[in-house]
Amino acid sequence: MATQNGSVTLDEAATEQLAEQLRELRVKVTQNAEKVRLLKQANAPAAEIAASVDTLGQLRAQVTALEKQFESTRPLYYQLRSQCENLLKRRFFVVPSYEIYGGVGGLYDFGPPGCALKAAVEQLWRQHFVLAEDMLEVSGPCLTPHIVLKTSGHVDRFTDLMVKDTVTSDCLRADKYLEEKIDERLNAKEGISPEEAERLALLRRQADALSAEAMKAALEELNVKSPAGNPLSDPFPFNLMFGLKIGPKDEGGAGENQLQDARAKGAAAAAARSAEGRGYLRPETAQGIFVNFRRLLEFNGGRMPFAAAQLGLGFRNEIAPRNGLLRVREFQMGEIEHFVHPDHKDHPKFHLVKDLKLPLFSREKQLSDGKVLRDMTVGEAVAKKIIDNETLGYFLARTFVFLTRCGIAESGLRFRQHLTSEMAHYAKDCWDAEVECSFGWIEVAGHADRSAFDLSNHSKVSKVDLVAFHKFDSPKIVDYVKYTPNKGLCGKTFKERQQALHEAIEEKSDSDKLAIEAALAADGKYALTLCTGETFELTRDMMKFEKTTKKVSEEAFVPAVIEPSFGIGRILHCIMEHAFRSRGIVDQEERCYMAFPAIIAPTKCVILPISSNPSFSELLQKVRDACVSRGISAKIDASTASIGKRYARNDEVGTPFAITIDFDSLKDESVTVRERDSMEQIRVSLAKAVDLVGRMSLGTLDWQTVKQTHALVDVKEA
Amino acid sequence: MATQNGSVTLDEAATEQLAEQLRELRVKVTQNAEKVRLLKQANAPAAEIAASVDTLGQLRAQVTALEKQFESTRPLYYQLRSQCENLLKRRFFVVPSYEIYGGVGGLYDFGPPGCALKAAVEQLWRQHFVLAEDMLEVSGPCLTPHIVLKTSGHVDRFTDLMVKDTVTSDCLRADKYLEEKIDERLNAKEGISPEEAERLALLRRQADALSAEAMKAALEELNVKSPAGNPLSDPFPFNLMFGLKIGPKDEGGAGENQLQDARAKGAAAAAARSAEGRGYLRPETAQGIFVNFRRLLEFNGGRMPFAAAQLGLGFRNEIAPRNGLLRVREFQMGEIEHFVHPDHKDHPKFHLVKDLKLPLFSREKQLSDGKVLRDMTVGEAVAKKIIDNETLGYFLARTFVFLTRCGIAESGLRFRQHLTSEMAHYAKDCWDAEVECSFGWIEVAGHADRSAFDLSNHSKVSKVDLVAFHKFDSPKIVDYVKYTPNKGLCGKTFKERQQALHEAIEEKSDSDKLAIEAALAADGKYALTLCTGETFELTRDMMKFEKTTKKVSEEAFVPAVIEPSFGIGRILHCIMEHAFRSRGIVDQEERCYMAFPAIIAPTKCVILPISSNPSFSELLQKVRDACVSRGISAKIDASTASIGKRYARNDEVGTPFAITIDFDSLKDESVTVRERDSMEQIRVSLAKAVDLVGRMSLGTLDWQTVKQTHALVDVKEA
Repeated sequence: MATQNGSVTLDEAATEQLAEQLRELRVKVTQNAEKVRLLKQANAPAAEIAASVDTLGQLRAQVTALEKQFESTRPLYYQLRSQCENLLKRRFFVVPSYEIYGGVGGLYDFGPPGCALKAAVEQLWRQHFVLAEDMLEVSGPCLTPHIVLKTSGHVDRFTDLMVKDTVTSDCLRADKYLEEKIDERLNAKEGISPEEAERLALLRRQADALSAEAMKAALEELNVKSPAGNPLSDPFPFNLMFGLKIGPKDEGGAGENQLQDARAKGAAAAAARSAEGRGYLRPETAQGIFVNFRRLLEFNGGRMPFAAAQLGLGFRNEIAPRNGLLRVREFQMGEIEHFVHPDHKDHPKFHLVKDLKLPLFSREKQLSDGKVLRDMTVGEAVAKKIIDNETLGYFLARTFVFLTRCGIAESGLRFRQHLTSEMAHYAKDCWDAEVECSFGWIEVAGHADRSAFDLSNHSKVSKVDLVAFHKFDSPKIVDYVKYTPNKGLCGKTFKERQQALHEAIEEKSDSDKLAIEAALAADGKYALTLCTGETFELTRDMMKFEKTTKKVSEEAFVPAVIEPSFGIGRILHCIMEHAFRSRGIVDQEERCYMAFPAIIAPTKCVILPISSNPSFSELLQKVRDACVSRGISAKIDASTASIGKRYARNDEVGTPFAITIDFDSLKDESVTVRERDSMEQIRVSLAKAVDLVGRMSLGTLDWQTVKQTHALVDVKEA
Repeated sequence: MATQNGSVTLDEAATEQLAEQLRELRVKVTQNAEKVRLLKQANAPAAEIAASVDTLGQLRAQVTALEKQFESTRPLYYQLRSQCENLLKRRFFVVPSYEIYGGVGGLYDFGPPGCALKAAVEQLWRQHFVLAEDMLEVSGPCLTPHIVLKTSGHVDRFTDLMVKDTVTSDCLRADKYLEEKIDERLNAKEGISPEEAERLALLRRQADALSAEAMKAALEELNVKSPAGNPLSDPFPFNLMFGLKIGPKDEGGAGENQLQDARAKGAAAAAARSAEGRGYLRPETAQGIFVNFRRLLEFNGGRMPFAAAQLGLGFRNEIAPRNGLLRVREFQMGEIEHFVHPDHKDHPKFHLVKDLKLPLFSREKQLSDGKVLRDMTVGEAVAKKIIDNETLGYFLARTFVFLTRCGIAESGLRFRQHLTSEMAHYAKDCWDAEVECSFGWIEVAGHADRSAFDLSNHSKVSKVDLVAFHKFDSPKIVDYVKYTPNKGLCGKTFKERQQALHEAIEEKSDSDKLAIEAALAADGKYALTLCTGETFELTRDMMKFEKTTKKVSEEAFVPAVIEPSFGIGRILHCIMEHAFRSRGIVDQEERCYMAFPAIIAPTKCVILPISSNPSFSELLQKVRDACVSRGISAKIDASTASIGKRYARNDEVGTPFAITIDFDSLKDESVTVRERDSMEQIRVSLAKAVDLVGRMSLGTLDWQTVKQTHALVDVKEA
């Protein structure tokens, strides 16, 4: 019988000891296999060979036994992965899209329980982040014009290396294919020295960061062929965005020049359509927040810091989708952009989380003993600069609480810091929330300090200032170089070009201005060339520059952005694996169920008549209406299956509570309430039952507390 | 001062009388203008001309006055459209997407209040339809492979007629452009006979149904040029789906042949990728439900009828997006597919709605007096066959209740039946829910009986049976023609082709089978040609056919589909216009607010300290926490603006309740609760306030009831 609890804490020491024994035994197998081969080649006596073969057989049996033992220490989602997958498909949580047409890789449909789980998790996300933190939620389109994603860098850099089978033209994602090939080599177990294994393992870890040249070299070194055995093309970058055309025009999208052209003409109609044409499906929702920064700041009354959030779809034209919901082409994301002064990243609510212990897998630990810190508080980690700043620490803590509220086991959750080489050049610090599932540790949320990169770029290209203002406690006196033009003379000389001249000079730095002053003082003239190529012949009497001071009470700054970004689909996958439980074999079948926390359960309550007697129907409807009017999602299961079968069936879709009606209920409206995980029941009035289930569904009351004031009744389910 | 209430009931009789007067006056203007022209042409005496010109001037003044009077009988969203638009943009309900880059037509961002309103309306939709009706909710991807939309007919028929400016290549949507041009002609007021006006009005109504040829003729007849004054191209169909490529391969998408090829090979890998390649963004969510029919039926335990629902994005590459949220390129939809036996379209819950009076604009009324029936119950309408069946009637009633719960005024809501010529060839009956807004009557939801069209087509192409089973009350004896092959002989003769032969014969109708029997009996042979072109030379001894009977206890059938389909964005637009109110001019400004019903209000409660004194901050947080833990979305507004300004500001975003804290609150934790529409206040304990606001937010308690048990307190807001 399997473990009752899928989230059983792994005894890490014991597990590691087993792994070590296994490693040693495998080496012995390798050595003995080599010995047998040599004996055979040397035509050694049959008895000697037989003895060696016998030893080898015994060693192999030991390995098998140990592997089984090792397996049994793993969480349930490793042990019963196929049962879990089977349940998810059979009960229509998630299935491949367009199945009747053979399916499309990387696209999935959520059936009724999956859809309700997704809606509940999104609602909790909204409540936990947006409502509780007073974030400004926005919702923008998936269709995105070229210029936005050109500016953000996605057009140039949102790529994966691809290789093609030179005969069949089949496409392969280079890093993942290389990883597979390295795994095959490492798992071959024989003929690899420890040094070689170490080197290959390192190459595997770096696979997704290799340049096209390094990838080519690695593939050649391992002599990698296509799955069909053909030579591979050179690796080349493949952009992962879905391109499309917005609007009916055949021409390509408007670029920067056309935009400026439209602006210059002041033609409202042209401007309104200026970004039509070439476009993409958004690869992330973040850009839709950045381009709205001005309106958001205004909505927030100009106050900083503040956060905006968006729940919506992202798209990624994966070369080789796989692993169910983990690598898909269309996915729901929840992204938060917290805008903050780049020099003041403290957080007003940090004190509320500072004593929380987080499972931190810091850069330093990854490069030393590979162990996750589980005893350090967020406060300590920020004080020691392991986490860069309070805001980042605050969000790691909030994410931790969110994921555990969703039922993710603490033992299968860690925050992995990006290595310096992993981060984008503009990023300051970055932590991924990783969850262990049957595919290993996978990233479900990122927490990046993106600095001012995006806002600065959009500002530059759109020519719209995306800045906030910081008021000084008291005004400051600052040095500056004052520009005093002789506007009459400049106007006479340069006519309508005058304005461009003044703007160009105002934009120059103080030292540039002083250099012009020096030239005018020395030569009486200066030829100023703008970046447009236009030249102005300046003379001494047209302007003067002087060093002086001014009082300023605020400064403009481009805010830094701290971005917690959640992959809802990946979180759903992990929730489902971590919720998976077995009661062992019942009636010759593995009796599995989903132990979702009530707050995210797809259906909160099933209402069951003890038999299919029609006299129950009125009361059933009454119970259901009472539940629905309290906002409890409830279903009636009045089928003819036995009550035990029906409990089991509703346990499978993770319904935490059952209200059961029997013949006594018809007399006094008393009902039983059953809790899924313990299978315990109490008997109360109908009104009480609905009240208890309502509060337990919101998570404001738990079964342990209910049991203290209500006697359990003895019920046989089988 | 404007009317207090935007949803004021229009006195239809008075309005129509005004409209009639206006029509008559305009005819007089036309007649007099014609007279003046004729007098001038005839060089009539100056005095006579002057008198006629004078009469014409007076008539025109009367028209202007009457137009103003007519305008004032219209709902507020006509009268104060620009104020409403201004409020929606200024308070960040909805703004054009990518504004800093000049925007993209037909794409909009929802800011914080718009986003919260959208989420609340979607939640209500889920509660009102999915939960209350036990529908099976699914959620599929936007990315859709070619074969699905080819089968559904969208690849061939989801088009609008387009014309191009032959010089600038600017694109125009032909029907809308023709409508504009007809309006211009009609509004020119002069030189059009009543018969001509009538003919043009008819052409305008048919504009969206014209063939390319008819459109060409209409444009030529009216001598229509492009906006730039250039000749137009011939009209041609433009497919409104966004095309894209799914996966990295360069080749086009798999068609039917490749799919069958993949199936025939039994190659799992090939099949898994068979629908990759050419694809589209879905134009509707319905197809994602149809392709899942088998799993849905299984999930429902094989029981019919049942409904599935999906909330998600649809995409439409509009040629000329306009009218804000009403004609956009990306939009949220809510679609329901109710599967039912084609001969049994009664609905088990019909009795619950049958006495509801619906505003029905039937086919017959549209073609006769053009008046909306407002006194007929759904029961009557179904009994009289005005509405085709109970299920359709049931959903019309549910939609009516949903839209009025959202705050749509009954006077601005009607159900318009499609004219016979408007419906798709397979549709049985179709009713649009239409709402009157400042752009006129617009469709916000459709209710179509799609018959078995989609399921039959997907079945045919995918070769997967999409059928349900109907159990007879008692088994039936039916006639049929029994086919008895001589398998030994057939096998010997046709070898591996035998199976195809048997399948082909089994699929034939009884009369076809009897025809083969007759031929074999007469000639001793028969050449059977399959649709693949393959021929079988049959002989008498290979098979026989005989008329006999069999007992059947169930029949398979392809379900009919009744589809209520909602445009969430359009509903949001109408909600916002219908909620728009003015308190008239206050402090030299039009004091506007949004009277959203509490259940869909973006924020339910604002918490206000009477002043910005820091001593309030602890209690403020306590009130907020109490609200949030009850699931009430609440915001603190502690800015330094006067309390009146802050009430007004929160009224603008439609927050229905305010809890205000003053210095007395610090002593006894008593607070005032203010209701937005009446601006009335009561004073209660903090706990009581949160309880009342919580219940009023869910719509289970209203202010009228609260006032009966709580004395109003007198508070000045200005």
